[in-house]
Amino acid sequence: VQESVLSIEATEKGAYRHFMLKEIHEQPRALTDTWQGRLSDNNVLASSIGPEAEALLARVEAVHIVACGTSSHAGMVARYWIEAEARLPCNVELASEYRYRDPVVPRNCLFVTLSQSGETADTLAALRYAKSLGEGAGYLATLAICNKPETSLTRESDLIMMTRAGPEIGVASTKAFTTQLMCLRMLTAMIGRGPDRAERVVGDIRGVGSAVERVLELDSAISHLAEHFVDKQHALFLGRGPMYPIAMEGALKLKEISYLHAEAYAAGELKHGPLALVDEDMPVVAVAPNNEWLEKVKSNLQEVRARGGKLYVFADENSGLETEPGITVLDMPHVPDTVAPIAYTIPLQLLAYHVAVAKGTDVDQPRNLAKSVTVE
Amino acid sequence: VQESVLSIEATEKGAYRHFMLKEIHEQPRALTDTWQGRLSDNNVLASSIGPEAEALLARVEAVHIVACGTSSHAGMVARYWIEAEARLPCNVELASEYRYRDPVVPRNCLFVTLSQSGETADTLAALRYAKSLGEGAGYLATLAICNKPETSLTRESDLIMMTRAGPEIGVASTKAFTTQLMCLRMLTAMIGRGPDRAERVVGDIRGVGSAVERVLELDSAISHLAEHFVDKQHALFLGRGPMYPIAMEGALKLKEISYLHAEAYAAGELKHGPLALVDEDMPVVAVAPNNEWLEKVKSNLQEVRARGGKLYVFADENSGLETEPGITVLDMPHVPDTVAPIAYTIPLQLLAYHVAVAKGTDVDQPRNLAKSVTVE
Repeated sequence: VQESVLSIEATEKGAYRHFMLKEIHEQPRALTDTWQGRLSDNNVLASSIGPEAEALLARVEAVHIVACGTSSHAGMVARYWIEAEARLPCNVELASEYRYRDPVVPRNCLFVTLSQSGETADTLAALRYAKSLGEGAGYLATLAICNKPETSLTRESDLIMMTRAGPEIGVASTKAFTTQLMCLRMLTAMIGRGPDRAERVVGDIRGVGSAVERVLELDSAISHLAEHFVDKQHALFLGRGPMYPIAMEGALKLKEISYLHAEAYAAGELKHGPLALVDEDMPVVAVAPNNEWLEKVKSNLQEVRARGGKLYVFADENSGLETEPGITVLDMPHVPDTVAPIAYTIPLQLLAYHVAVAKGTDVDQPRNLAKSVTVE
Repeated sequence: VQESVLSIEATEKGAYRHFMLKEIHEQPRALTDTWQGRLSDNNVLASSIGPEAEALLARVEAVHIVACGTSSHAGMVARYWIEAEARLPCNVELASEYRYRDPVVPRNCLFVTLSQSGETADTLAALRYAKSLGEGAGYLATLAICNKPETSLTRESDLIMMTRAGPEIGVASTKAFTTQLMCLRMLTAMIGRGPDRAERVVGDIRGVGSAVERVLELDSAISHLAEHFVDKQHALFLGRGPMYPIAMEGALKLKEISYLHAEAYAAGELKHGPLALVDEDMPVVAVAPNNEWLEKVKSNLQEVRARGGKLYVFADENSGLETEPGITVLDMPHVPDTVAPIAYTIPLQLLAYHVAVAKGTDVDQPRNLAKSVTVE
C-alpha cells in the first residue's frame, strides 16, 4: 500500500500559523496522493484496494454508510453519487443511531465505515454490530475508508481504502474530509452499474488537485469576508443536492472552531421554518455551483434577501450571480459537477478558519473537543 | 370516511389566548379521532383506508417517505418504527431534495407523502415525479397522509389516510404533526411482517389520548420553565433513536414562533462538534423516555453538565434523573415505547408556545412564514 508522501513533514507547522491552515493548503497534494495508483486511463481500479475487491464489489446491490460527525457529511455526499450514478440504493446513518436500532439489511449490501482515526468508538461498534449479523442475514462485506493505517477499523474490515491525507493535527478535520470524498468518488465508479461514466470521472478526478489550487487563491478574499462574521452569534448555511452536506460541513467547521452557532439547511426547507430566524443579525452562507440546482438555489436566495438577510454566496464564475446590496458573491473557478463537493468545501474551511483567527479562539484545539472520539 | 368532530368549532379560539394553545390542547381528542374505526380488538385494519388497501399493503417490500418541514420529522420517526417493527427498509427524504436527484426505487416500494395541507408544492411535485416513473421502474402504490380532504395530494394518490386533527389555524403545526405520527404508527402495523406485535400496539394506541391528557397537566410547570429561555438566543435539543426527530421538531417549534436559534442533534453526535458551543448561554433540552437509549442519553447529559451547560430534561418518571444544580428535570408520565414520540412532542410544543408568549412574538402568525407552502 502506497502511503502519503505528506507523512514525514506533516507534524510541523512550517510557515503556517496553525496546523489547520497548513492542512487546508495541503489538500491539492493530499487529494492527488489519494487517487495515485488507483486509476487507469479510463477507469477506477477496484483491484487497487485488494485482489479480491473486484469480484466482491461486482456483487454489491446496496450500500450502507455509517460514520460520525464530519465523516458522516462525506457519507451523505456519497449517497447522492451512488444512487444517481451507480444506481444502487444507499443509506447513510450516524453510527450512534445505527447501532441501537436493529436496521434492515438488504441483499448483497456493502457496509462502509468512514473514520479519520480508525478508532471512533461508535463507528467501530457499528462495524462490530454489522459483522455480528453473520452470513445470510448480514452484509456482503465491510469496507473501511480510513486515514490512519493499523487501526481497529482497518484490522476488522474486509476491504480497506486509505485516504492519504497524512497526519491531521488540527481537531477540526479538513484534508481527511476531502480525501474521504475522493475515496467515495472512486468507490462510486468501482460499484457503478449505470451508463459508463467512468472515463469522464477519471478525468475529473485527475483535475481535482489543480482545481483546489485555484480555489485556495481565494484565501485572502475570504479572510476579508470573515470580518463580517466576527461580531455575529449565528449563521445559516444553505445548499441543495450534494451541496447540502457540504453546507452542513461548513456549518460544523464554524461551530467547532469559532463557536458561532451555525446551522445548515437544505435550501428548499427554508420556507418550512428557518426563514423565521432570518434577519440582519443572521448571515446566510450559500454554495452555488453551476449545476441543475442553480436556479432553485437562486430563488431560495431571493427569499432570504426579501427578509433582510445578509447573503454570502460561493458561486460558480458563470452562475450569473453578482455582488449587490445584501448579497456578496465570491466567484469560484468552474469545476466539474462530479467533484464540486470537494472544491466547494475549501472556501467554507477557510471561512471558518479566518473567523476563528479573527475571534482569537484556539484554532487547532477548540474547547470541549478531542481529535478522535474513542469513547461513546 | 369519518371526518373529525373537531371541524365545526375549530376555527374559533374559545377560551384560549391563541389558536396554537387551543390546538395543543385538542390533541387528546384529535389523536383518538384519528384511530377511531381503524382498529379491531387486536389489529390495525388496513381495510379502513380503502377496500383495495389490504391486498396492496401485503405486497409492500420497502417504503419511501417524502415530506417537508414538520411533516418530515414525522417521517423520520416512522423510519425507526418501520425498520424495527415491520422489518422493511425505509427511507425518508425532504421533498425538495428527493425530486431533483433521480433516486433508486426498490422493488414493491410504497411511496408515502405527508402534508397537513395536501398542497405543499415540493411534496406534490415529488408525488407527481414518483408517479411519472410508471409501472416496472416505479413504485407499487402511493399513499397520502393528509389533514385536509379534497386536496391535490389526496386526489392524486392511490391510497389516503386522513389525519383527523380538524382545521389547524396556527402556522406552527402541532396537532397535525402528532396525528401524522398516529397514522404512521398504524401504517407500521398494517405493513408489518415481523413477530406479531399488533395486539400490544393496538392497546398502546387506544391509550394515547389519556396519556397526552396527563402530559398536558405539565402546562403550568412548563410555562415557568419557559422563563429560563426568554433572554436566550440559542438552544440545543437532544434525543436518541425515535426521539431524535422529536428533538428536531421541538427545535423547529422554538425557531418558528420564538425566533430562538434552536438546533437539534442526535445526542451521540455531541462530541463530534456541537459540544464546542455548549456554555451557560446555550441551554440544552433533552427528551429521555425510559427506553433502551436512556443510559446512553444520561451519559450524553453528563458531557453537557461537565462543560457548564444548563440542562432541561423531559424524562420518564422512572428514569432516575432528578433536578440538581445544572439540571432541571420535568417528570413525564410513563408511556409505552411505541407511542412515546407522540407523548414527548407535547412538552416541546408547550415550551415553544410559552417562550413565544413570554417574548411577545405573534404566536399564531410568525414572521416570514405561511401556513401552507404552496410555492417551491
